[in-house]
Amino acid sequence: MADPQSQWALYLLESLVAAGVRDAVISPGSRSTPLVWAASQTRELRLHAIIDERSAAFYALGQARVSGRPSLLICTSGTAASNYFPAVIEARESGVPLIVLSADRPFELIHCGAHQTIDQTRLFGAYAPYHELGTPVPDRDALLGLRRSAWQAVLTSMEAPRGAVHLNFRAKKPLEPRLDDPSVALPSPPARAALQRTAPDNAAPERVRSADVEALIAALDASESPLLICGAESIHDSASPELVARFADLTGSVVCPESVSQLRFRLPSGGGGVVCDTYDWLLGNPALVSALAPDFALQLGGTPVSAALERVIQDPGRGLRYAIAAESGWPDPLHKSAELLRARSGDLLQAAVHVLERRGGRTARPRLEGWRRAQAAARAAIDRHLLGAFGEPAAVAAVVNALPSGSLLALGNSLPPRLVDRYAPAAARGISVVCQRGASGIEGTIAGALGAASQTDVPVSLILGDISFLHDIGSLWAALPSRTQTEQRACPVVLIVINNDGGRIFEQLPIARQPGVPLALWTTPHQLRLRGAAELFGIGYAEVADRGGLDRALGAAYAGTGVTLVEVVVDTDSALMSQRAVSAELDSLLPPLVERVEA
Amino acid sequence: MADPQSQWALYLLESLVAAGVRDAVISPGSRSTPLVWAASQTRELRLHAIIDERSAAFYALGQARVSGRPSLLICTSGTAASNYFPAVIEARESGVPLIVLSADRPFELIHCGAHQTIDQTRLFGAYAPYHELGTPVPDRDALLGLRRSAWQAVLTSMEAPRGAVHLNFRAKKPLEPRLDDPSVALPSPPARAALQRTAPDNAAPERVRSADVEALIAALDASESPLLICGAESIHDSASPELVARFADLTGSVVCPESVSQLRFRLPSGGGGVVCDTYDWLLGNPALVSALAPDFALQLGGTPVSAALERVIQDPGRGLRYAIAAESGWPDPLHKSAELLRARSGDLLQAAVHVLERRGGRTARPRLEGWRRAQAAARAAIDRHLLGAFGEPAAVAAVVNALPSGSLLALGNSLPPRLVDRYAPAAARGISVVCQRGASGIEGTIAGALGAASQTDVPVSLILGDISFLHDIGSLWAALPSRTQTEQRACPVVLIVINNDGGRIFEQLPIARQPGVPLALWTTPHQLRLRGAAELFGIGYAEVADRGGLDRALGAAYAGTGVTLVEVVVDTDSALMSQRAVSAELDSLLPPLVERVEA
Repeated sequence: MADPQSQWALYLLESLVAAGVRDAVISPGSRSTPLVWAASQTRELRLHAIIDERSAAFYALGQARVSGRPSLLICTSGTAASNYFPAVIEARESGVPLIVLSADRPFELIHCGAHQTIDQTRLFGAYAPYHELGTPVPDRDALLGLRRSAWQAVLTSMEAPRGAVHLNFRAKKPLEPRLDDPSVALPSPPARAALQRTAPDNAAPERVRSADVEALIAALDASESPLLICGAESIHDSASPELVARFADLTGSVVCPESVSQLRFRLPSGGGGVVCDTYDWLLGNPALVSALAPDFALQLGGTPVSAALERVIQDPGRGLRYAIAAESGWPDPLHKSAELLRARSGDLLQAAVHVLERRGGRTARPRLEGWRRAQAAARAAIDRHLLGAFGEPAAVAAVVNALPSGSLLALGNSLPPRLVDRYAPAAARGISVVCQRGASGIEGTIAGALGAASQTDVPVSLILGDISFLHDIGSLWAALPSRTQTEQRACPVVLIVINNDGGRIFEQLPIARQPGVPLALWTTPHQLRLRGAAELFGIGYAEVADRGGLDRALGAAYAGTGVTLVEVVVDTDSALMSQRAVSAELDSLLPPLVERVEA
Repeated sequence: MADPQSQWALYLLESLVAAGVRDAVISPGSRSTPLVWAASQTRELRLHAIIDERSAAFYALGQARVSGRPSLLICTSGTAASNYFPAVIEARESGVPLIVLSADRPFELIHCGAHQTIDQTRLFGAYAPYHELGTPVPDRDALLGLRRSAWQAVLTSMEAPRGAVHLNFRAKKPLEPRLDDPSVALPSPPARAALQRTAPDNAAPERVRSADVEALIAALDASESPLLICGAESIHDSASPELVARFADLTGSVVCPESVSQLRFRLPSGGGGVVCDTYDWLLGNPALVSALAPDFALQLGGTPVSAALERVIQDPGRGLRYAIAAESGWPDPLHKSAELLRARSGDLLQAAVHVLERRGGRTARPRLEGWRRAQAAARAAIDRHLLGAFGEPAAVAAVVNALPSGSLLALGNSLPPRLVDRYAPAAARGISVVCQRGASGIEGTIAGALGAASQTDVPVSLILGDISFLHDIGSLWAALPSRTQTEQRACPVVLIVINNDGGRIFEQLPIARQPGVPLALWTTPHQLRLRGAAELFGIGYAEVADRGGLDRALGAAYAGTGVTLVEVVVDTDSALMSQRAVSAELDSLLPPLVERVEA
């Protein structure tokens, strides 16, 4: 047995593992020595060594998005933990569990100029509950409290609203274990817990208030053209595709699935509803909106990104009734919701399905056929366009098309997820999506994808822009084979960077039409090619500039097992050009359709 | 004139410039559009566009370390500002001024799932005073308050204890300026201020309490062998080399200058004191310490890193009297100070010199000759060793030797600054040093050096380790010529990376001698070469592995004007081997010297 401090650290780590933690992401340091030693001695804990704490934190978030468990971050004292801050905020905003275990110096070394020492108390403010663990005290009450803190941290991180919990451990010198010290009598670790989150297909309708179900059914009964909007939800939060399809079938709803909802690439087609993957285009056409007349919308998950949808919800002339299902939070920046249904999506839909099935019969939905025709026409127009000019939208659609069934798709923020929503067709392909849509920050996307990959044995693909890539380039460290003690994955990770030389989303915003403005301060063009990044970190690389090259590069990458960077070089304005071309095509294509719908 | 919001933003920027700000470091985003537009319209403001907010913040800190003024950080809403956190902490811990201007959404969009929206209130907790600016209100009182906030932020950032101030600006859509709007009547901006910090050679002894001066003089009078320990101080905080030399001359002090004190490479030699650049070696020899008998130490600046010095201060048998001069803070983690003299170093020394000069005469310092001989012997032994094996210490010493006179040296944390202190000789070469020694974090060193380079027209060199380099690799963005609107520098920036394949400082710590420990979790070896990083960002590159190659690469780099990465590949254990070899040499060399001192 070791000295009291080392045993204390070991007991803490064992208690965290007993409470359900399985992965520790370690950034090197000296003050954290007792914690890292203890982690290395704890069976069942997989260790991942990532030097940049910001990368480490987003890596841990990526792990938790797949595993449903909090990963454990371990870092040294000083500013180290402050690099976790963006990920700690994202954890809270997107409801992903996370445990931060920061090493610190003993109280007597605070506020006196000791090296790598700052006041770490409540470092993350309101974004993470703070547990001060103090310096190790090897008495039984202190150890029982330590055990409780470990257990409590894991539980709190997984209870709504979920997020990060911060444990601060103060280590005294000597930091290394002294293995010849007399043993300390330790209480047993907490009983083993199966704290992994409930799978989303295990809906529990009894957790829904009956008043909420009644309100939903009443709104559906009063509606002639209901929408089911599926916003961002994690793999562990979203309702199962079968349940959503059943609900749509029973209620004759038009389902509008964002890619980040887990439903766009998993919903079965057919049945009594319509899966509409072109809603962002269709709802942008006022005449068509008038003809299809959506009058009720139920929103699942986070706030959707479609500006067209936003305008329809906000239009006072339309008077659309708007209900939101949310287990926590209040995702309604338009301040338009008539109902806030306090429930998990799956629980709410299951409860509604239960009532509707008992009741039997269906409400007539005279507009559904119009929706079907509009969707088919828009889909065909988009697909035709994508066969033509190769640019950012065609590249994104080609990547989604090439994804292996059942694989995991990670999305950056900014343009790529919007392009997936606009251009990639919905299909039941068993593809799950991870994305940092809590606070929608630009940082940490590479780390998040690599962390997700560490938790699954299916291929993982990440689509991101060149600015997001350069913002997180240091996270390619996590692609090094030496970064972890565990065996290497047998499945490929493919990082697809759409390089349009800067942040071209700004070219779609009003500032781009402003005379006399130095737009480069927004778009930050750089004229870089990314091959050097792949060479530096020793990962595969292909630069492509056309559809054939892209398909070949993806084919080779998915046939391998390592990490490959595929750089797709596109014209700077290709997204804008496609947006205009498809809009023009739909402007000419939709009016006859409107006439038929209204006839 | 523009719409009220744009004018409000413009007035804020103009007020910040009037208060003394000259540089704005902008990270792109949408919500910050009014601020970025206003910055682009503000004359006298140099703009630097850096995509990663963490890099941007350390770049701004590097600027301020040279300019003495706070740089202005501008970012968008959401997690963007949270990436500033490590630099905001470092700003406070090292007393460097900084202004954070974060864009935010209006109050009605907080807590309701709006994209890129978090609660930014008091985001940095105790590390930065927070000014909520709200949404623009174009009435006169609000504008006067805005003007006051700008002025106050600049002033607060520059007053002890100095650091970051956080302004939070809430912008409403439309974000872009509408130039045809009616004009708003604006009060005049604040009067122009010359807020740049007092130069350190402008000592103001009247700001020192006479009781503190008397205590210092009394302690010096009672001492037989006084030390003047020069710890970390910024260019704008340290006492001038001439003043320190005059003080040492009058008091017969042994000056122990850390490289980060600004004095090691600027102190004139000669006079009545001794400049001892080998104190870390000499103080490690107990017999020599007994013979030289240091009995008083005055510490300027931050806590020194020398473990040998620490042991001498702590030794209860020695009973060394220990005084600390500090304008703010309490840099005494050993809890050993008899006096805390609340004064700037320069002010205190000037006041003491004034008293001593009026009094005339000098105290006899019988040990000084012993110090001189020990210093000369150790210096010669170190220099002999460095001529032999080429490794990390020889590389660091060679780089320091090759620095152009009057140039700026930036140092990473961890091993390189310690090696400079141990191996590079003191000399009056006019070299200033920038280093993040506030919290001594690993992050942001490349950004800091490039930011410093943007404020000076002398060559800038950065010495850092491979882990620090990889931790901050994204900051090479700041080396792109396109990153700034201003003209390019005509002077070289040389980034010297000592690549010893991981964090070898851990091999010098006790954990390395622990059996059964997976040391790679501390050292994180990676086997990478860094050429790809240089290719990616289009900067010069040379890989060297011996003294001749290093000298040639440095010669070429200093002859040019761009940014060059010089990768020095050394054996993983070369620092440890040199440490042992020099220690052994001194163990055999010092005893005869001790006898002579004692004779």
